[in-house]
Amino acid sequence: MVSEPNGPRPTLEAVAARAGVSRATVSRVVNGGAGVRAVVQERVRQAVRELGYVPNSAARTLVTRRTGAVAVVIAEPETRVFTDPFFGRQLRGISRALAAADTQLLLMFVEHRTDYDRIGRYLSAGHVDGALMFSLHRDDPLPAMAERAGLPTVYGGRPGWAGADRAPRAAPLLYVDTDNRDGARQAVRHLLDRGRRRIAVITGPLDQTSALDRLDGYREALGAAEPDPRLIADGGFTAQGGERAMARLLDAAPDLDAVFACSDLMANGALRTLRARGHRVPDDVAVVGYDDLEPAAWADPPLTTVRQDVEEMGRLMAGLLLRLLDPRRAGGAEGAEAAGAVELAPVITEARLVVREST
Amino acid sequence: MVSEPNGPRPTLEAVAARAGVSRATVSRVVNGGAGVRAVVQERVRQAVRELGYVPNSAARTLVTRRTGAVAVVIAEPETRVFTDPFFGRQLRGISRALAAADTQLLLMFVEHRTDYDRIGRYLSAGHVDGALMFSLHRDDPLPAMAERAGLPTVYGGRPGWAGADRAPRAAPLLYVDTDNRDGARQAVRHLLDRGRRRIAVITGPLDQTSALDRLDGYREALGAAEPDPRLIADGGFTAQGGERAMARLLDAAPDLDAVFACSDLMANGALRTLRARGHRVPDDVAVVGYDDLEPAAWADPPLTTVRQDVEEMGRLMAGLLLRLLDPRRAGGAEGAEAAGAVELAPVITEARLVVREST
Repeated sequence: MVSEPNGPRPTLEAVAARAGVSRATVSRVVNGGAGVRAVVQERVRQAVRELGYVPNSAARTLVTRRTGAVAVVIAEPETRVFTDPFFGRQLRGISRALAAADTQLLLMFVEHRTDYDRIGRYLSAGHVDGALMFSLHRDDPLPAMAERAGLPTVYGGRPGWAGADRAPRAAPLLYVDTDNRDGARQAVRHLLDRGRRRIAVITGPLDQTSALDRLDGYREALGAAEPDPRLIADGGFTAQGGERAMARLLDAAPDLDAVFACSDLMANGALRTLRARGHRVPDDVAVVGYDDLEPAAWADPPLTTVRQDVEEMGRLMAGLLLRLLDPRRAGGAEGAEAAGAVELAPVITEARLVVREST
Repeated sequence: MVSEPNGPRPTLEAVAARAGVSRATVSRVVNGGAGVRAVVQERVRQAVRELGYVPNSAARTLVTRRTGAVAVVIAEPETRVFTDPFFGRQLRGISRALAAADTQLLLMFVEHRTDYDRIGRYLSAGHVDGALMFSLHRDDPLPAMAERAGLPTVYGGRPGWAGADRAPRAAPLLYVDTDNRDGARQAVRHLLDRGRRRIAVITGPLDQTSALDRLDGYREALGAAEPDPRLIADGGFTAQGGERAMARLLDAAPDLDAVFACSDLMANGALRTLRARGHRVPDDVAVVGYDDLEPAAWADPPLTTVRQDVEEMGRLMAGLLLRLLDPRRAGGAEGAEAAGAVELAPVITEARLVVREST
C-alpha cells in the first residue's frame, strides 16, 4: 500500500480514474458493492489498494447515514468546563456509556456566541449521529439548530430555552435532570430543623433551569411567596461568584444565620468570605452546598450538601440517546416509534441531603 | 420548509425519488450542479425545499474534502484530563487559535486501549481536516493511524513513539515542545546553588519524552553519568503518584535534602508527604516543581518551579496545523511544499525557572 504521510489523501476521483469507472460506482463498491458487477468491483478494489485510498465517511454516510459518533456540546467556555468538577464527572458517565456502545465521543465547548454558527454547521453536516447538550441558557440557539437539522438530541437539565414548551412537537424533548426543587427544599428544611431563621440563598445564573428550580425549592421550603430580597444573591455557579455573593449578602443582611449555596463551588467561595470576615461555620453561619462533588469533601469544614449522582446522569443521557438511535439502526421509523412509546421519556433522578460539619 | 424535529432526516434517496433523478444527480446538484442541466437542477432544488433536506457532509465532502473541523486527541483518560490543569490550559490555547480561524474543535479522550480503533476509524473517515495529538506514550498507535490515513497532524511533545525516528519520511513530523532538558537543568542547578547536595527526582512516566528529557536534564546538571538510583522515583505525573514517590524516596534515602518533581501536581503530592512526615520545606528539604500552573501558586509553601507557557504551546500547535492545512485551501500541493520549506517545522519553546518559597 502506498501511503503519503501528511501528503494529500488519494481521492475518490483518483480511484475512479484508475479503475476507469464513475465516482458513483466507486462509492457503491466502497459501501458494499450492491448493483455493481463482480468484475468491476474487483477492478475498483484493486485501484483502492494501489492508491491506498481510505474509504471516507462521505461515501459511506451517503448509504448508511451513520457515523458512529455523538457530539457532546457543553454550552460553556472551556475555562468553566475545566474548573467545575460537575462537567468532568458528567462526561465520565457519558464517556463510559458511549464507549460501551462503541460510539465515539466528540466534545465541543462554546467559547463565544460566534461559535454557535460553526457548531450548528458541523452538527447538521452529517458528521455525527446525535448530540448530547448541556448547561444550556435561556437564549441558547443550539436546540433550535438541532431541531432544524433533525439531529437526535438529548439534553442535560430541564429544557428552559425560548420555545422549549412550544406545542405541538413531533417528538417529546428528551432530557435528564435531578429533582432540583426537591433537593433545595431538603437543604432549606434541614437548616430550619437546625433552628436557623435568617436563611440566605446564593443562586446560579437564573437563565438556567437548574438555578431557577433550586431557587423555587428554597422559596417553597420557607413557605414565603416573596422571601426577603436581601437574602438572595446570584453567584453564577463559580467559586469567585460565591465569594462575592456572600460578601453582598453579609453587607445587606448582617443578621443572616445560614446560607444555601446552589453549588459546592459557590459554597466554597462563601466559606472563604465567611472566614475572611471572622464568621465561624457553622456556629455563626451554617452553610449547605449542592452537588456533593470533590469541593464538598475538600471544604473546611466539610460541607453539608445535596447529592446528585452526576456521573449517573451522564450515563442516563447517553443511554437515552443510544436508545433513540438504536431503532433506526435496527431499521426504520416504525421501530423507533414503538420504542419511543415505551421507554423514551425524560428521566428525573433523586436528590438527597448529605449532612457534614458545615451545619 | 417542512421540518420534522427529532424525526428521521429526509434522505438523499427521498430527494432523488421525489425529483425523479438518480442519487448521483442529487449529490451533484447539492454540490453546485456542475454537469447537470438547469431544468433538472431546478427539479432537484424544488424537491430539496419540499422535503426540508439538509445537504449533509457526505455529499459536500466528496467534492470539497473539507469539514472545517480539527480533532484534538488527548491520549489520556478523561479523569486525568480533568484533574491535571496542564490539559485545560493547553486546550485554551488551541481552542482560541482554532476559533480565530473559524475551525471547529472536536475533543477526544483515550479511556482504554480498545478506544484506539474507534478513534482511528473516525479520524480516517473524512470527518476532520486534521488532528492535534498530545500526551502520547511510547507504544501509542495514534501516529501510525494518522499517517496511514494521510491526516495532517501536529503533535504536542517531542515524538518518542516506536517508528517516530524512521527515515525517510515524506514530510517531517511537526510538533511543539518546551526545552524540557534545559528546564530540568535550570531546576537542579538552582538547588545546587542553594547548597543542596542530595537531590532526588520524581519523574513522569518514562514512556513519555517529556518525562525522559527532564530526567536527562537532571542527570546532566548533576554531572553524574549514573546518579544514585535511590534518588529517582516515578510519580506518573499525578498528585497521588508524587505523594507515594516522595515516601519511597524518603525511605530509600533519608538524607536527601532536595527534590525536583517533574510536574507541579507531583510536587504538591511530595509536599503532602513531607508535611505528614514532619519535614520542613525548604529548611529540611527544598522542592522544585515543573509547569507553573495553578497548583504551583496554591502550594504551601508556594512552589519554585519551571515555567512553560502551556497556553502558548497550544496556540502554536493549532497555528502549525492551520498553516499545514492552509496551502491546500489556497490550492494545491505546490503551495504546500513551498510553505513547508519556509515555515513548517517543529517549535521548541523556552523553559524558565520561577523562584518562590519552596527552595
